[in-house]
Amino acid sequence: MAKIGIAGASGYTGFELLRLLTNHPDAEIVFLTSETYQGKEISKVFPSISGFIDTKLSSIESVSSDTCDIVFLALPHTTSMEKVPDFLKGGTKVIDLSADYRLKDPAVFKEWYSIPHQQPALLKDAVYGLPEIHREKIKAARLVANPGCYPTSITLALAPVVTEDWADLSSIIVDSKSGISGAGRKASLNTQFSEVNEGVSAYNIAVHRHTPEIEQELSALAKTNVQISFSPHLVPMTRGMLSTVYINLKQDKSIENLIEHFQKFYAEEPFVRILPLGEYANSHFTLSSNFCDIGVHVDKRNRRAIITSAIDNLIKGASGQAVQNMNLMLGISETTGLNFPGIFP
Amino acid sequence: MAKIGIAGASGYTGFELLRLLTNHPDAEIVFLTSETYQGKEISKVFPSISGFIDTKLSSIESVSSDTCDIVFLALPHTTSMEKVPDFLKGGTKVIDLSADYRLKDPAVFKEWYSIPHQQPALLKDAVYGLPEIHREKIKAARLVANPGCYPTSITLALAPVVTEDWADLSSIIVDSKSGISGAGRKASLNTQFSEVNEGVSAYNIAVHRHTPEIEQELSALAKTNVQISFSPHLVPMTRGMLSTVYINLKQDKSIENLIEHFQKFYAEEPFVRILPLGEYANSHFTLSSNFCDIGVHVDKRNRRAIITSAIDNLIKGASGQAVQNMNLMLGISETTGLNFPGIFP
Amino acid sequence: MAKIGIAGASGYTGFELLRLLTNHPDAEIVFLTSETYQGKEISKVFPSISGFIDTKLSSIESVSSDTCDIVFLALPHTTSMEKVPDFLKGGTKVIDLSADYRLKDPAVFKEWYSIPHQQPALLKDAVYGLPEIHREKIKAARLVANPGCYPTSITLALAPVVTEDWADLSSIIVDSKSGISGAGRKASLNTQFSEVNEGVSAYNIAVHRHTPEIEQELSALAKTNVQISFSPHLVPMTRGMLSTVYINLKQDKSIENLIEHFQKFYAEEPFVRILPLGEYANSHFTLSSNFCDIGVHVDKRNRRAIITSAIDNLIKGASGQAVQNMNLMLGISETTGLNFPGIFP
Amino acid sequence: MAKIGIAGASGYTGFELLRLLTNHPDAEIVFLTSETYQGKEISKVFPSISGFIDTKLSSIESVSSDTCDIVFLALPHTTSMEKVPDFLKGGTKVIDLSADYRLKDPAVFKEWYSIPHQQPALLKDAVYGLPEIHREKIKAARLVANPGCYPTSITLALAPVVTEDWADLSSIIVDSKSGISGAGRKASLNTQFSEVNEGVSAYNIAVHRHTPEIEQELSALAKTNVQISFSPHLVPMTRGMLSTVYINLKQDKSIENLIEHFQKFYAEEPFVRILPLGEYANSHFTLSSNFCDIGVHVDKRNRRAIITSAIDNLIKGASGQAVQNMNLMLGISETTGLNFPGIFP
Repeated sequence: MAKIGIAGASGYTGFELLRLLTNHPDAEIVFLTSETYQGKEISKVFPSISGFIDTKLSSIESVSSDTCDIVFLALPHTTSMEKVPDFLKGGTKVIDLSADYRLKDPAVFKEWYSIPHQQPALLKDAVYGLPEIHREKIKAARLVANPGCYPTSITLALAPVVTEDWADLSSIIVDSKSGISGAGRKASLNTQFSEVNEGVSAYNIAVHRHTPEIEQELSALAKTNVQISFSPHLVPMTRGMLSTVYINLKQDKSIENLIEHFQKFYAEEPFVRILPLGEYANSHFTLSSNFCDIGVHVDKRNRRAIITSAIDNLIKGASGQAVQNMNLMLGISETTGLNFPGIFP
Repeated sequence: MAKIGIAGASGYTGFELLRLLTNHPDAEIVFLTSETYQGKEISKVFPSISGFIDTKLSSIESVSSDTCDIVFLALPHTTSMEKVPDFLKGGTKVIDLSADYRLKDPAVFKEWYSIPHQQPALLKDAVYGLPEIHREKIKAARLVANPGCYPTSITLALAPVVTEDWADLSSIIVDSKSGISGAGRKASLNTQFSEVNEGVSAYNIAVHRHTPEIEQELSALAKTNVQISFSPHLVPMTRGMLSTVYINLKQDKSIENLIEHFQKFYAEEPFVRILPLGEYANSHFTLSSNFCDIGVHVDKRNRRAIITSAIDNLIKGASGQAVQNMNLMLGISETTGLNFPGIFP
Repeated sequence: MAKIGIAGASGYTGFELLRLLTNHPDAEIVFLTSETYQGKEISKVFPSISGFIDTKLSSIESVSSDTCDIVFLALPHTTSMEKVPDFLKGGTKVIDLSADYRLKDPAVFKEWYSIPHQQPALLKDAVYGLPEIHREKIKAARLVANPGCYPTSITLALAPVVTEDWADLSSIIVDSKSGISGAGRKASLNTQFSEVNEGVSAYNIAVHRHTPEIEQELSALAKTNVQISFSPHLVPMTRGMLSTVYINLKQDKSIENLIEHFQKFYAEEPFVRILPLGEYANSHFTLSSNFCDIGVHVDKRNRRAIITSAIDNLIKGASGQAVQNMNLMLGISETTGLNFPGIFP
Repeated sequence: MAKIGIAGASGYTGFELLRLLTNHPDAEIVFLTSETYQGKEISKVFPSISGFIDTKLSSIESVSSDTCDIVFLALPHTTSMEKVPDFLKGGTKVIDLSADYRLKDPAVFKEWYSIPHQQPALLKDAVYGLPEIHREKIKAARLVANPGCYPTSITLALAPVVTEDWADLSSIIVDSKSGISGAGRKASLNTQFSEVNEGVSAYNIAVHRHTPEIEQELSALAKTNVQISFSPHLVPMTRGMLSTVYINLKQDKSIENLIEHFQKFYAEEPFVRILPLGEYANSHFTLSSNFCDIGVHVDKRNRRAIITSAIDNLIKGASGQAVQNMNLMLGISETTGLNFPGIFP
């Protein structure tokens, strides 16, 4: 039974970790932190967990760095940066859900986050926690940088393509649609129900901070520099994410052929499902599960592949993937505690 | 490992049964029926289950009545009525999710359903499947009539009150609000997204067919005839149900006292949670779980108790409760396969 | 052309006033105030109004009290209280959308709002702005207290009944359901999209501040003291409100008879529609209009009338009704600028 | 006062026409047809219109072709095709909201709609009803083919670009997001509330029938053959559409420069609003209005223009645009009956 701490348990990804671990046979929660709600029982913040756990939320300052085997950091960006070294020194493995340790190059970090990285040396140790790409490194890691939700859906959609010489790497366009929970749990006018309900909108086109993270992973896969255009959008639903990815083909490819290629690429993956011919990804069918569903399409008239990729942004896009990484780091079955279908409807 | 059949697996409650049983350690699915989709794999109807089960849907006519230990009937009203005797004869226990075997009195059935009951003799054998009230009988039953969603939320809200002499049984008013999935899975203009979104409406006030079922249970508890006014409403969400119940008090009661009374009444219940002082039931906190959350309030100025009761209409209001009944009938732990918190948000 | 000021134009009711007045032939906007956004153009706060008006928002402190014929105060409670006397002294008529001048009795105000009223003398001058009840007084008023959304839907549902001797006035129960915009436009965790979406919840049962306002109006109509139980609920939609009202009858009444009674009571009203036999109020059909739709039902078994009443909370429940009051105060046709059907779907 | 008929008044676009014309000073409704509801009053089908009009719905067969000045056909595809010649012969001008007369080339029609066109000769007479592009021709037309919702949002986004030599016409990718009302008003499992709520999905990628319509208009503007990749998506909201359009630039362009270019292109247009620097199109701000809001962005790193374009699919995307066309055909002010801001929130 691994001892687990969650820092930032009163946010959506922190609480989702707790909910998932409640049903995990090999995890025992030893602390939950929240600066906003310290001293309060977690079930007072989230009544849905009532009856399962009555741990009080504590300040992260009061937590000793050596009391658990693995700590999840579901903290705001830059806060994680500071806390990671302490836990590592205490011998605790860290899964960081923030963006702080995802970028390998401190210069790129500074360019997109406007501040210098405080722990540039640690960036080399951090493993990017996308099991489908970095499984073996994750198993051996002491620090895993859990991917963002957009990068997860996009990298999984593109990995089978950017590794091939028939793909035109200069043509990649990504149009993503996210539910509102991706904005996190905080009082904000922009994500009030009445402001976002009954509307779809774009934001941060070509300047979203997930861009360098996606490009880093695609470039590593392609073994050459890859740049993309990335446009995120908000849609009026709580959970769910759909990425539609466009890439020109250097030669004709049939849909059947492309689907087969994807099926082979992900043949051994427990959480990637390639949809049958004619099916399009629909985030509703991944809701509350750890799956990434991928639909493969070809625009023959324009010789383009168009890939649709759906996840639950809080599970495969955050906390479920973090548990998947935890399983790998603990040396237990990768699907433990995650092997359930989503709810429908 | 119990052998389980689900008749009507392409509806919402049938599929929810399948989803829940996918994670049940003691259940093995032996057949799934659907008249509409017979011959198709279940994962083609519900892609969310893809990777878990690839059983083909068959016609109920093709199913032998003695191939499983328990069959769930998630069939339209009156269809269940016919099928139950066959399965019972084959030695299969039946959990019927329709309304066909819920009413003890065939005359009441005829009054509210406009047709005579075809199996009046079987009504005596049927046990009303609300474990909090009929647990011991359910354990021994061969036919369980699984309660409707409204009756579940309402009976649990009122059971601790109607059994007391300080309650004015002639004053009960119930105002319920349901998500749209309660209408079932079928092409209907009335439940099209654009018709029901962004609106709240009443329907079937004082004439809803769940009324006699609620009154039967409350009368049995109160040991006297109880009549209620019942007003159902539709709210624009997929899952969830909230019932607000009004009852006059014959003597002054403090909220604290009433909460304590409810806590004692449900002290041993694994799936009923009495909310702390000042909290109101919110269906969001029961979403995708088998819990019924009950908020207890007193209008002192008018000496009325006002009880709020929240469930997920497809789980505690249907398929989760059916699995709870199955567990009781199988003699295994009642919470098996159901002991998880709901998702939030 | 009447000169109009709107104080608090960056809130939902303030902006709805502006939108409605944009299409009003006899109103000219002379100022818009907002403390939060002062100095900003209104179209920067609400891009939907872009192209219609480019007035800059100013602080209410900078506004002279004698520059317009009528000022609408869409300010927080207690702020209105202070500002009203200034405008009245300046010769400006006031329509106050806050609760500050709705209650006639300062003692009742103090009981429910926990602070003493600062202008008790002015309470006598204030006219409660429900045109269906107080039309003639509104025409002559210099200060109109615009009703709350709940009180509008409830008083209109009950007015035809509480004035009759066959109604049991001690039995009134009101169960209301509101869209989220009723909570106003501010950053709040409680009304974040992800918190309230996909859930229905009760709040402030028997203690909501609209209660004394409703009771004041019902008591005046009934010419005796009337007390009610009032339970508000939140449903996941932006606009819309449905109140379901229960009242015992002292004698049998047929539905047909009761509908006819309502039709006569509201025969001359331009914004009240009595639904035909068998129809239930649905807030979707009043969305974006100034109508109140009323459905009349009888629970014969329990001799209760059950009335359903639907409005758009921001129009008939706030800003549309305020414009209706303005029309009356200006001596122009009551329906000017309001005579349009709502959108559907 | 023009005499107006609406064929297909019980669908969403037909009813939206009726609602808009209810407030149009120069239009008088002379007939409403519906095959499904013939004999019923329109207010029984749509209670929101109650009190404004009580016309009975009639069969289109019973309607004489010469009783009105202009007829709107809001009929299913192929049904319109047959009816148009009759009305034209009767001297009635026709605005057809179906796709039947939008494509100039019968061969292209057959390719995408799988049937031969029945009135190929009439295709030459039909004017594509996008006033921003074809205003003068619309004024003189006897048959206007009202554009589809997707083509409206996309053509308006691209018109200022495809006419310039710095645009790479081979690189156009369009990713559109639509509310559910775009699927029309009919009982369908696919658009049931519970099926589409809380999910975003793609459909008909690269094969949607609006593709040739968009390409026809872009090609005419560019004076060369233009092909696009078009991916439609469904998002869980009733009304609203957002198109995100990608096009490579042959030379560097600053955002400021591109915005200025768009502002000049649409300087005289009453219903196109170019958003200020840094703003992204949001369908919420066009809800219930006839506006198209366009946001202009540049991905400098990849030298791409990314245009976001928002409309209400039922207004500027269908019935509002049809009224705009009617105004032009009647020779009255183009904005008559349409000059109002949308609701917010």
